[in-house]
Amino acid sequence: MKRNVLIIGAGGVAQVVAHKCAQNNDVLGDLHIASRTVSKCHAIIQSVHDKQAMKQDGVFEAHAVDAMDSDAVAAVLDKTGAQIVINVGSAFVNMTVLEACIRTGAAYIDTAIHEDPAKICETPPWYANYEWKRREDCAKAGVTALLGAGFDPGMVNAFARFAIDEFMDEVTSIDIVDINAGDHGKYFSTNFDPEINFREFTGTVYSWQDGAWQSNKMFEVGRDWELPVVGTQRAYMSGHDEVHSLAVNYPQADVRFWMGFGDHYINVFTVLQNLGLLSEQPVTTAEGLEVVPLKVVKAVLPDPSTLAPNYTGKTCIGDLVKGTRDGEEVEVFVYNVSDHEKAYAEVGSQGISYTAGVPPVAMAMLVADGTYDHGAMMNVEELAPKPLFALLDRIGLPTRVKDAKGDREWHRA
Amino acid sequence: MKRNVLIIGAGGVAQVVAHKCAQNNDVLGDLHIASRTVSKCHAIIQSVHDKQAMKQDGVFEAHAVDAMDSDAVAAVLDKTGAQIVINVGSAFVNMTVLEACIRTGAAYIDTAIHEDPAKICETPPWYANYEWKRREDCAKAGVTALLGAGFDPGMVNAFARFAIDEFMDEVTSIDIVDINAGDHGKYFSTNFDPEINFREFTGTVYSWQDGAWQSNKMFEVGRDWELPVVGTQRAYMSGHDEVHSLAVNYPQADVRFWMGFGDHYINVFTVLQNLGLLSEQPVTTAEGLEVVPLKVVKAVLPDPSTLAPNYTGKTCIGDLVKGTRDGEEVEVFVYNVSDHEKAYAEVGSQGISYTAGVPPVAMAMLVADGTYDHGAMMNVEELAPKPLFALLDRIGLPTRVKDAKGDREWHRA
Repeated sequence: MKRNVLIIGAGGVAQVVAHKCAQNNDVLGDLHIASRTVSKCHAIIQSVHDKQAMKQDGVFEAHAVDAMDSDAVAAVLDKTGAQIVINVGSAFVNMTVLEACIRTGAAYIDTAIHEDPAKICETPPWYANYEWKRREDCAKAGVTALLGAGFDPGMVNAFARFAIDEFMDEVTSIDIVDINAGDHGKYFSTNFDPEINFREFTGTVYSWQDGAWQSNKMFEVGRDWELPVVGTQRAYMSGHDEVHSLAVNYPQADVRFWMGFGDHYINVFTVLQNLGLLSEQPVTTAEGLEVVPLKVVKAVLPDPSTLAPNYTGKTCIGDLVKGTRDGEEVEVFVYNVSDHEKAYAEVGSQGISYTAGVPPVAMAMLVADGTYDHGAMMNVEELAPKPLFALLDRIGLPTRVKDAKGDREWHRA
Repeated sequence: MKRNVLIIGAGGVAQVVAHKCAQNNDVLGDLHIASRTVSKCHAIIQSVHDKQAMKQDGVFEAHAVDAMDSDAVAAVLDKTGAQIVINVGSAFVNMTVLEACIRTGAAYIDTAIHEDPAKICETPPWYANYEWKRREDCAKAGVTALLGAGFDPGMVNAFARFAIDEFMDEVTSIDIVDINAGDHGKYFSTNFDPEINFREFTGTVYSWQDGAWQSNKMFEVGRDWELPVVGTQRAYMSGHDEVHSLAVNYPQADVRFWMGFGDHYINVFTVLQNLGLLSEQPVTTAEGLEVVPLKVVKAVLPDPSTLAPNYTGKTCIGDLVKGTRDGEEVEVFVYNVSDHEKAYAEVGSQGISYTAGVPPVAMAMLVADGTYDHGAMMNVEELAPKPLFALLDRIGLPTRVKDAKGDREWHRA
């Protein structure tokens, strides 16, 4: 049993995490949020109070912290007594925040792999480059560390585990499909920090097929998917965190990730990419100013956090898992559909942030009640999925199943 | 009679001007080239010597000058004794260089209107905003100033004058068509300094029709043109310098400028424009760095001067002029076709720079021999066109005519 949560980060996902933690502070205890820019933390806490989101009276405090500094994070943990950290800060701070947790004994939860700001795309499997190197340290210290505990990675890992456990003896393929059929009304915008968003697509696309890592280029392999609610949608094979852990845990299966893109997105991305405007390597202007093109692109694009009020439409994210049972081929699609407008009404964020931010709060609640507090580093497919599904049915992200027998709630499968 | 030339600027067009001046230094006398970056001047002089372009032994010297400083330009004129200035520097230096000429009595020749770095698109007629305000001063000082004396503006103004004088009693329309059917082999590049090139297309498109200024958006009005050598090409109505002086000199005619663009160029331009990356207003990155997006785009694009070695194909630039003679409708196309590879072989530049750089040298030669040395400020349509055509036939840009009677050299018309 652990209590009191420290949220690291103050972006769009942190906003969702904060609201969901507040709605469940009877389980989670005191709440804290820390970021380099403390004013952003104050704004999030204010929005929580504006929506009267706190389930019961309690603490919600803001802290200024440089999350690249383990000592500073550990100091906040000591000061606040937080026993659970939900890290939704930049992808560059995972290892320093994890270090602070190992030192203080707090449980660690994040939603994406660690990245080195100087590298675009590491060689697979990505978790082995940073996080898994601390697995033994976590075990020795009895520290619970849940990696990639957002939606994708996160829920989709649990979807794969569930599909395999419930429907098949052998798994042959896991295809994760992420479709945002929403409309933000802008000429162009990324849904997350453009720096992180574009990095997903500028490197090599790694997939796990035929028992080995395969590489492709972005937008090289596309396929139309027939999906519940959002209909037929084109998605492209992309590199993504969860492919790397699922490939290690289910090496016998092909594991692929498919991200939905409209032609307009691809066109804008391709132009920027080909011109060199997505580069993280500085260029020098004629006036002698050194500047990273990607940071300028980020500066001219809409701030993703401003999209929420006008975002309409739905997301559909799920796993098509194929395998065999009793020698027969089986295939099942486990998925969630979320609504941008409903997300905004509830927590003041768009649906993409909502799907990313709600699962780590559910994980934190399952750490708090002991269900997921295993004192070890784990990826989500290594956790029992049903308690998570049951909790998310209740707090906003219901899981459904579609197969030859029809489309239904997961617990009726 | 005037002698000795000072070239202002050291870009792609200056390279052509330098070579052509050298090839004609028997007429022009001593040659000087001045730029903020004197090493660029040295490189150009070196390339002139490498090609053994000097017609006879003579002076070709480099000078460092800030052309925004009239005193500094005047000092170079005093020091060198240059009596003719060919200004092919940035569009921002016209007025300071002209001021130095008025002060010293040197003849002034430029190839594009003055621009204020802080403004994208001025209200028409553009020459009236800066240059024409000094017309009286030129007349008083007896200073020859030839404005817009490149290809377009420049030769196309002379084409219009020639067509009207030779073929019609009344002119009803002048359509200037600029097609570059060349291929530089890059994903995307502008042919001139991107900062200047994009500025032509980011503002309002002004045309003179029905006796008044009309405004459109860029790429709003497109039309296919059936042209000699380059075939059918799509061009879009664009704002351009020469529309402004021709509309004042031929107010009874519709005057329009059409620039050829492929779908790929338009797509890249549209993406950059819509994202705000062509803006000259600084943005601030997340790290607090103030930067002008257009300058970053310029930094990532190929340097136009590097395109020349691999440029293939041809340009076709001409005027379709319509009017009446003896009550009958007549229509004539006066044009030049240039070849990128031939231009590179001759002067080490691509065809776009070649067409822009050769005419001002011809003008300088006609100032040197007195033909164009009228001691007044003039646009090119105010000059007798035939001496210019005859000279350009000889030094690299032959003029042709196409009408109902066929396609032939201008002097057979």
